[in-house]
Amino acid sequence: MKTLAALVFPEFQTLDLFGPLEMFGDQDNELEIIIVAESGDPVKSRHGQYLVPDRTLKDGSDYNYVFVPGGRGTPVEEDNPAITAWLIEAGGKADIVMGVCTGGALLAKVGLLDGRRATTNKQDFEWSLPFGPKVDWVPKARWVEDGKFFTSSGVSAGIDMSLAVIAQEFGLEAAEKTAREAEYDWHRDSNWDPFAQVYGLV
Amino acid sequence: MKTLAALVFPEFQTLDLFGPLEMFGDQDNELEIIIVAESGDPVKSRHGQYLVPDRTLKDGSDYNYVFVPGGRGTPVEEDNPAITAWLIEAGGKADIVMGVCTGGALLAKVGLLDGRRATTNKQDFEWSLPFGPKVDWVPKARWVEDGKFFTSSGVSAGIDMSLAVIAQEFGLEAAEKTAREAEYDWHRDSNWDPFAQVYGLV
Repeated sequence: MKTLAALVFPEFQTLDLFGPLEMFGDQDNELEIIIVAESGDPVKSRHGQYLVPDRTLKDGSDYNYVFVPGGRGTPVEEDNPAITAWLIEAGGKADIVMGVCTGGALLAKVGLLDGRRATTNKQDFEWSLPFGPKVDWVPKARWVEDGKFFTSSGVSAGIDMSLAVIAQEFGLEAAEKTAREAEYDWHRDSNWDPFAQVYGLV
Repeated sequence: MKTLAALVFPEFQTLDLFGPLEMFGDQDNELEIIIVAESGDPVKSRHGQYLVPDRTLKDGSDYNYVFVPGGRGTPVEEDNPAITAWLIEAGGKADIVMGVCTGGALLAKVGLLDGRRATTNKQDFEWSLPFGPKVDWVPKARWVEDGKFFTSSGVSAGIDMSLAVIAQEFGLEAAEKTAREAEYDWHRDSNWDPFAQVYGLV
C-alpha cells in the first residue's frame, strides 16, 4: 500500500484538496490517503468546513506522495517554520510531489522547485512569481510535470493533474475508470489552458 | 444572508459535496453554508476524510437551500427515520432543493420528487429507479431542473448544476466569476451528458 500525505492548513482552498482526493481516493486498493496538519485540531477550509487531520507534521515525513493545496492560507504558511521544514523533508523524500494552485508557490518558497518548470493559479500568477525566483514559471499550462514535481493551475486544474499522476502511477485504465465513475470531463492535454488568456498571461 | 444546509452522512461521496461547496462558498457575501448531520460527531467521507458538522438535524429545518450529496451511504440513509423526516421537512420548506448523484435517489425515496423530472448517477441509474417509482427519471442530462428541485448526474456533475443554481439565484455574472476563479470548464448545457452513452442509457 502506498501513502499520500495531503498537507492542510487554515484557509486551504476547498476544491484544491477534495477534487484530487476524489480521484486518488478511488485508488484505495493501492493507496492510503493521510491528511497531515500542524496539530491534530480540525482545520478550517477557505469555505468554512472543518476537516479532522489524520496525523500531524511530527508524526513523520515518509510518504510516497506529498500533496499541497493552495488557498489564501499560502502566504501565512510560507513563513511557518514547522510547515516549511516538513515540506522540505517530506518533499525531498517523496517519489512524487504535487502542488495545486498557490500550493505551487509554497513548494517554490521552500526551494523544492528551484531550477524546475512549474505553474500555479492564473489569476494570482504574478503574485506567485516572487515565491520562486529560481523557478521557470510556465504561464500557459493546465499542469506542468518536471521530474517528480507536478504543479497545476488554479483549483479545478488539480483534478486533471491528479488523473495524469494516477495514469502514470496506477495505469491509464485506472485513471480512465476514475474519471468515468466521477462523470468527469478529464482534460488530458496539459497544454489546455484557456485561463492563461482570460487572465492576460499570453 | 441566505443559508444552505448541506446534509452529510457516513460514506458521502467526497466530490459530490465539496465541488458544489467550492462554488457556493464563493458567494460568501450572500450565503452561509451549514454542514448538517445526524449528530455532532465528525462524519467520514467515502474516501476517509472526517468532516465536522456545524449543526445536527435537531437544530432545525429552516434553510433557504437544501443540498444532498450521494455516495454509497445513500442506501443506508434511505432507511434512517431521522434523516428522512428531516429531508421531508427541510426540503418541503426550502426555496431550492438539490441532489447530486445518488443524493437524488434519497430525495426520491422520501417522496420529494414524486411527479417530477429528475436525474441521478449514470453508472447506478437503474439502481436508483426503484427509489422513486413516481419520478420521471431522465436518462440523458447533466442536471435536471423541475420547479424548485435540481438533481444532477454523478459526482462532478454537481459542480455544473451548482453553477446553474448560482446563476439563477445570484446572477449569471456571479456564476461566471466563480467558474473563472476556480479555472473550471463549466458545462452550461444541462443536456450535455456523454456519460449517458458511456453507460448504455441512450
